[in-house]
Amino acid sequence: MGKVCFGADVGGTSVKLGLFDETGALLDKWEIPSRKEKGQTPVLDDVAASVLSKITEKGLNKDDVIGIGIDVPGPVLSDGTVIEAVNLYWDTVKAKNVMEELTGLKTEIANDANAAALGEMWLGGGKGYNSICMITLGTGVGGGIILDGQIVAGSNGAGGEIGHMLVNYDETEKCNCGKCGCLEQYCSATGIVRVAKRYMAANDTATKLRFIENLTAKDVLDAAKENDAVGVYVLNELGRYLAIACSHVAHVIDVQAFVVGGGVSKAGEVVLDAIKKYYPGFCMKAVKNKEFKLATLGNDAGIYGCAKMVLGK
Amino acid sequence: MGKVCFGADVGGTSVKLGLFDETGALLDKWEIPSRKEKGQTPVLDDVAASVLSKITEKGLNKDDVIGIGIDVPGPVLSDGTVIEAVNLYWDTVKAKNVMEELTGLKTEIANDANAAALGEMWLGGGKGYNSICMITLGTGVGGGIILDGQIVAGSNGAGGEIGHMLVNYDETEKCNCGKCGCLEQYCSATGIVRVAKRYMAANDTATKLRFIENLTAKDVLDAAKENDAVGVYVLNELGRYLAIACSHVAHVIDVQAFVVGGGVSKAGEVVLDAIKKYYPGFCMKAVKNKEFKLATLGNDAGIYGCAKMVLGK
Repeated sequence: MGKVCFGADVGGTSVKLGLFDETGALLDKWEIPSRKEKGQTPVLDDVAASVLSKITEKGLNKDDVIGIGIDVPGPVLSDGTVIEAVNLYWDTVKAKNVMEELTGLKTEIANDANAAALGEMWLGGGKGYNSICMITLGTGVGGGIILDGQIVAGSNGAGGEIGHMLVNYDETEKCNCGKCGCLEQYCSATGIVRVAKRYMAANDTATKLRFIENLTAKDVLDAAKENDAVGVYVLNELGRYLAIACSHVAHVIDVQAFVVGGGVSKAGEVVLDAIKKYYPGFCMKAVKNKEFKLATLGNDAGIYGCAKMVLGK
Repeated sequence: MGKVCFGADVGGTSVKLGLFDETGALLDKWEIPSRKEKGQTPVLDDVAASVLSKITEKGLNKDDVIGIGIDVPGPVLSDGTVIEAVNLYWDTVKAKNVMEELTGLKTEIANDANAAALGEMWLGGGKGYNSICMITLGTGVGGGIILDGQIVAGSNGAGGEIGHMLVNYDETEKCNCGKCGCLEQYCSATGIVRVAKRYMAANDTATKLRFIENLTAKDVLDAAKENDAVGVYVLNELGRYLAIACSHVAHVIDVQAFVVGGGVSKAGEVVLDAIKKYYPGFCMKAVKNKEFKLATLGNDAGIYGCAKMVLGK
């Protein structure tokens, strides 16, 4: 089967694992639970055991395995040290060293949003580029920066934390981070619902959204597609704030493309159109022309990115 | 004398040249005029001739020379192609190739602000760090990003163009770039005078600045140090807008330190204090603690950075 590598996307509940060949073909995919214990890292033992048993199952030699890429939900330094992963009950863990001792295989570690960005650059929405910013619009807003094919981890593991970029100086409601006016407050699924509800409370605009119990971001964006006035307002706000954040990223590192993923991006091209409508107006000439793409790998972006980390450029 | 290298900081009027040893000791420094001719690059011929004659003058062999680093005022791609350098009358020039053919020496090319940032990281205000954002407060606001000891050139050579980051949505006066609300409009020498004049026109606050003809940024910042009400207002605005821009940079690439240079930074620690007063309020916890330093290499930052480009990490 030639040379292979493993990717392991460690979440708070489960670990997604993938076996890849060198071209990025996903040969096998499976899940194991995320075992957690205060002050311990049992999930790493389980990932190591699962990888080693898969090597046996497939009749592989260790020499056939280029390595294991792992991502975790928390800040990770470029040397593979995880500073903190609250959902795994981890404090500082030299996860790269731990895994290499457990498996005897070369290991690379990254933050989950950064690994997803690398995956999307490699074989997803960012394919063909080597410098991208990925924006994940989920419950919160995450991000990952890839420059010249490499993850920008950041000096505190906070590279790509664009969800907490200040975009509205006039905001009075607090973000989960304690500040007011973060990108996440307008562009996450939660933020979209918040903006819609606040607008409806302050205006008596006719809208179908008033009659929906347990309003979701999907309801709001579906309404926007049907030209519902409140839906359109919220979509414009989403696009405008994302465009501001993208313009900041562009003036700092001048990436080639922005890749938008996460649950909110399932609304499709309307999200990109909303960003593109505002983006050039916030930019100097040199960075006005950027590509905006939808992510394509969904929940598999992490394992693809993990595989790419060990395969290298 | 051991191995040496050259740095050449090409400006619109003159070229500063430096001869360095491998440790960064500046062994010799001289200037030549910047010769310009439409559609030609005579300054590169002159730099090549000057370097070759210095090699002879010092009794060096070409084998002793590690290479030449050159910076130019314009966007430069990571492959050493200059896209445009208006002040040199250049369109796209493969400057790295041209110089290597002219001299037979390894050449590296960068944008001038980016080279200055690398110089300051190596032996200036950013010494001891490998990831910095340099902000140059001069007639305009320039910037340079260094990650892991390397210049971030950007896909269009626009890496570090933070002067045109949008920081004020309510601005009605236009920046030179055509947009409104750019960082440069508040934090350049020109911007500082503009903010002071506008404030004085709108308020009858008592201030010594009203009585100064041909008001300069130095006048305004000197007044701030003497607690002049308008001086203090302008310094606070400067600090607040720089803090906003720095917070954006930090949430994107999480550098270790910010280095502030250019004429305006000659006002000294008050500029850093003004930024530090506001910065943490714009940041999520992971990026709140950053170092803010004054640049120390002045006009030599460029040649130091050029030398460092050829010496490598």
